[in-house]
Amino acid sequence: MRRIVMINWISLDGLFAGPNGEIDWIIRDPEVDKALHEPRAGEASSVGSDTMLLGNITYTMFENSWPQIAKDPNAPEELHKLADEVIGMTKLVFSRTRNEVPWENSKLFHSNLVEEVEKLKRGKGTDIIVFGSGTIVQQLTNAGLIDEYLIAITPVMLGKGKPLFADVKRLNLRLLETRTFRSGNVLLRYELAS
Amino acid sequence: MRRIVMINWISLDGLFAGPNGEIDWIIRDPEVDKALHEPRAGEASSVGSDTMLLGNITYTMFENSWPQIAKDPNAPEELHKLADEVIGMTKLVFSRTRNEVPWENSKLFHSNLVEEVEKLKRGKGTDIIVFGSGTIVQQLTNAGLIDEYLIAITPVMLGKGKPLFADVKRLNLRLLETRTFRSGNVLLRYELAS
Repeated sequence: MRRIVMINWISLDGLFAGPNGEIDWIIRDPEVDKALHEPRAGEASSVGSDTMLLGNITYTMFENSWPQIAKDPNAPEELHKLADEVIGMTKLVFSRTRNEVPWENSKLFHSNLVEEVEKLKRGKGTDIIVFGSGTIVQQLTNAGLIDEYLIAITPVMLGKGKPLFADVKRLNLRLLETRTFRSGNVLLRYELAS
Repeated sequence: MRRIVMINWISLDGLFAGPNGEIDWIIRDPEVDKALHEPRAGEASSVGSDTMLLGNITYTMFENSWPQIAKDPNAPEELHKLADEVIGMTKLVFSRTRNEVPWENSKLFHSNLVEEVEKLKRGKGTDIIVFGSGTIVQQLTNAGLIDEYLIAITPVMLGKGKPLFADVKRLNLRLLETRTFRSGNVLLRYELAS
């Protein structure tokens, strides 16, 4: 059974992007990136993931930024490593409007998200990461298909923007771990409460 | 100079009450209540507070619940103590619609919130606690008048309800402290970033 793990940065008021998708308010923090790669508390070793599930907006943003970062000689070493990792991952892109996904290692799905994810979970492979992709997070949350939520709370109030969990049904979670970083980011890890 | 300290429980999606003001999703946690009374990290002793600033909705809810709790023989001891404390505090109630505040130790203000709070802060006395009261939190946040934010994040997604920081202007905060509780509540303490 493959697990679906959501990773997102949110503002203190629960938004994952500004009104026009802005993410300039996120405090870039290599320590948080590192923590996301470490073995989780209570687990013997890092599970790791080679697959990412994305909506159209996040896919487009990633396609336009990570290859640039990978080629940028001024980008710090750890960002280069992260870019190589993202580029190497299999990207499963769910979009009803897009006709193709030209970026390498990407695969386009027009089909029903929930059915497809149920099928993916029954298959073999690593954890599947959901990053950004608010509408996908909302649909999968309501279908009870996200096994773990990793939420980095940035010490910023935005006031206006896109709520990460808009229109989800009420849901109880179990807190697994809290980590605090010098940048002021707080990483919270939750699983579905049974 | 008196400080304004906001205390609120929010859901993981940034709501402090359900669509009709519901707060039944809050996980009652005497450990969190206790933490809110302890000396803060980096401070020699608890500052304490004898004054609370409230909007009409929170005042009405408090007036209808705390005196009942204080008289309830089945309420746990720590809840009795909390009820006595709330009843004993001075309640400054800001409302444009209300004509009177019959509850003991309460004082009604029809005047301009921001001007009045600026005046209060220049006066002598303890910290002033703002609890609940979303529209007051929003106005005072936008005026830069809240010195400290104490936010208890409950491990629940609500999906629908009242955002605590609706329509605030973008604001950077500094994380002062994180505390994690067995109930799954996480208490975050922030101050205004200078």
